[in-house]
Amino acid sequence: MILTVTPNAALDVTYTVDSLVPDEVHRVSAVRQRAGGKGINVARVLYALGADTRAVALAGGATGSAVAQELAASGVPAELVPIAGETRRTTTVLSSDDHAVTLFNEPGPVITAGEWAALAAAAARHRPEVLVCSGSLPPGAPPDAYAQLASAGIPTVLDTSGDALLAGLAGRPAVVKPNARELFEATGIRDVEAAAAELRKAGAGAVVVSLGRDGLLAVTAAGTWHAAPPAELSGNATGAGDAAVAGIALGICRHEPWPQVLRRAVALSGAAVLGPLAGDVDLPHYHREHHRVAVRARAS
Amino acid sequence: MILTVTPNAALDVTYTVDSLVPDEVHRVSAVRQRAGGKGINVARVLYALGADTRAVALAGGATGSAVAQELAASGVPAELVPIAGETRRTTTVLSSDDHAVTLFNEPGPVITAGEWAALAAAAARHRPEVLVCSGSLPPGAPPDAYAQLASAGIPTVLDTSGDALLAGLAGRPAVVKPNARELFEATGIRDVEAAAAELRKAGAGAVVVSLGRDGLLAVTAAGTWHAAPPAELSGNATGAGDAAVAGIALGICRHEPWPQVLRRAVALSGAAVLGPLAGDVDLPHYHREHHRVAVRARAS
Repeated sequence: MILTVTPNAALDVTYTVDSLVPDEVHRVSAVRQRAGGKGINVARVLYALGADTRAVALAGGATGSAVAQELAASGVPAELVPIAGETRRTTTVLSSDDHAVTLFNEPGPVITAGEWAALAAAAARHRPEVLVCSGSLPPGAPPDAYAQLASAGIPTVLDTSGDALLAGLAGRPAVVKPNARELFEATGIRDVEAAAAELRKAGAGAVVVSLGRDGLLAVTAAGTWHAAPPAELSGNATGAGDAAVAGIALGICRHEPWPQVLRRAVALSGAAVLGPLAGDVDLPHYHREHHRVAVRARAS
Repeated sequence: MILTVTPNAALDVTYTVDSLVPDEVHRVSAVRQRAGGKGINVARVLYALGADTRAVALAGGATGSAVAQELAASGVPAELVPIAGETRRTTTVLSSDDHAVTLFNEPGPVITAGEWAALAAAAARHRPEVLVCSGSLPPGAPPDAYAQLASAGIPTVLDTSGDALLAGLAGRPAVVKPNARELFEATGIRDVEAAAAELRKAGAGAVVVSLGRDGLLAVTAAGTWHAAPPAELSGNATGAGDAAVAGIALGICRHEPWPQVLRRAVALSGAAVLGPLAGDVDLPHYHREHHRVAVRARAS
C-alpha cells in the first residue's frame, strides 16, 4: 500500500471565466471544489489507476469539513487528522479564451506540535510499503518533519522544496522529485545533473527532476536517464508533478527498473495535463501514450 | 430605521497579492473575509455613521454560516433568512504593486418561492422608514421582486440593474441609483439626463446616476443636480456605489433637500474608495470632505 502524507491540505476551488483581465470584474461561470494538496492529488491518481493507496492529511474548520466530504464522495481512502486551525483554500482561475491557468494559494494554518505528532502517528499506523511526502510544511511543523517520517525505514518519495526539502534529506528518502527551479533554489547549482548529484550526496537515494515539457531526468545509483514525452500537450499543468510522483511511487512499490518507472511517470504527467483538475488523469491518454515515452540512458 | 434587503448575499473574500499576472501562481499574503452583498455593505456604512439600520438577507450552507458569524461579530444588526442553497462567495484580488482590484463573482444559489416569501415577510415585519433594495436577484426570485417590496408604501431606494431594475420601477421606488453603464443598458439611451427622465416616466421618483470620478447626477421632481467630489482618489472603488446609496437613504430618512443628500452621498463614496474593503468608509475623510463637495443645479 502506498501512503501519501499531506501536512498542508487544501480545498481546491476552480473558477472558470471567459478571460482573466486584471482590474476587471469577472462573472464566474462554473465553480468546482474538491480536496487538494499535493499528497491528496497523488493518492487520487493512484486510486484512479486501481493501486492500493491511502491519504493521511491534517484538516480543520469548515474548509476541512468540505475536504472530508469531498474525499468521502470521491472514494479515495483517506484519514484526516483534525487540527484547530482552518484548512486553507487554493483558487485556480481557468480562462476559457486563452487557456490561462492562474493560481492563488492561501497560506496554511499554523499547526501545533501535538497535531504534527498525531499526523506522524497516523502515518506510522498504516504501515505502508511506500510513503509519499508531498508539499509545503505548514507553519508550526518541525523543520525536519519529512526527515522524521522518511527515517522510519519505509521507502519514501519526497516532493517538496526549499528548507523542507533540504532538511528532509537527512531522512534518506528513496527519491526526491524537485522541478528544475526548486533544484536550483535548493542547491544554487545551475547544471541539473550536478545539482541532482549534490542532493544524492546529501541523502537522497535518487533524484528525479521534472523538466516541464522536456519530461523527467533521473539521477540514480543505477544510472542516469532522461524520459521525454512523445508530444507537447496543452492543458492544466497544475497536477502534472503530482501525477509523476504517483507513477514513481507505484514503480518503487513494484520494484520496477528505472526506465519503466520513468515511462509511467511521464505518461501520467501528460495524462494529468489533459485532466480538467489537479489530481485528474486522462486514463485513455495514459494507456495510449505509455509505450511512446522515449527513455534514454546518459553517460555519467 | 433604514432596512436594507440583500436577496443575493455573499461571503466577500479579499486576497492580497504582490501583482496579479494571468497564467502564474500567486502566494496570497493576506486573506480577509466578511459578509457582503450590496445591501449588507449599505447597512455597514449606515451602522458606521451611527444611523439606525438593519440588514435582512438570504443565507445558507457553510458560507451562509460564515456570513452570519461575521455579521454578529461586526455588530451590524441583521436578520438572515435561511435558504437550502449555499451562499455564494465573491473573491477580490488586490494587487499591492499597481493597486489593481480584480473581482470574481460566483453565481448565487437558486432560491425557492417560499424562501423569497420569507425574505419579503421579514422585510415587512421590521416596518422601516426607508427601504433599500440592493443588488442582483438570485435565480428563482420573482422577476418583479423589487417592485413587490417597494410597493408597500415605504420610500424605497433601488440599486440594481437590467431586468430587476426595469421590473422594479412598477413598485414606484423613491430613488433608483444606476451607474451610467447600467442606465444605458436599461434604456438604450446614451444621454444620461434623457435616460434618467425615461426611468422617472416608468415609475422612479428620482434617478441618481453614479458617474464614477465625476460624482453623481440626480434627476428629481424638484430639479436636476450634479454633485462632484473635490479631488480624484485612488483606492478600492468596489463599495463606492453602496456608500452613495447609504448616503441617499439617510438623506431621505431625514427629509433633507437634494443638494444636502447628494453632498453626503458623494463624500461617502470617496470615503469608501479609501476604505480597505467594500462596506468600509474612511470616516475622517468623510467628515473632512463633506463640505467640499460641489453641488450645482442644472437647467432642465
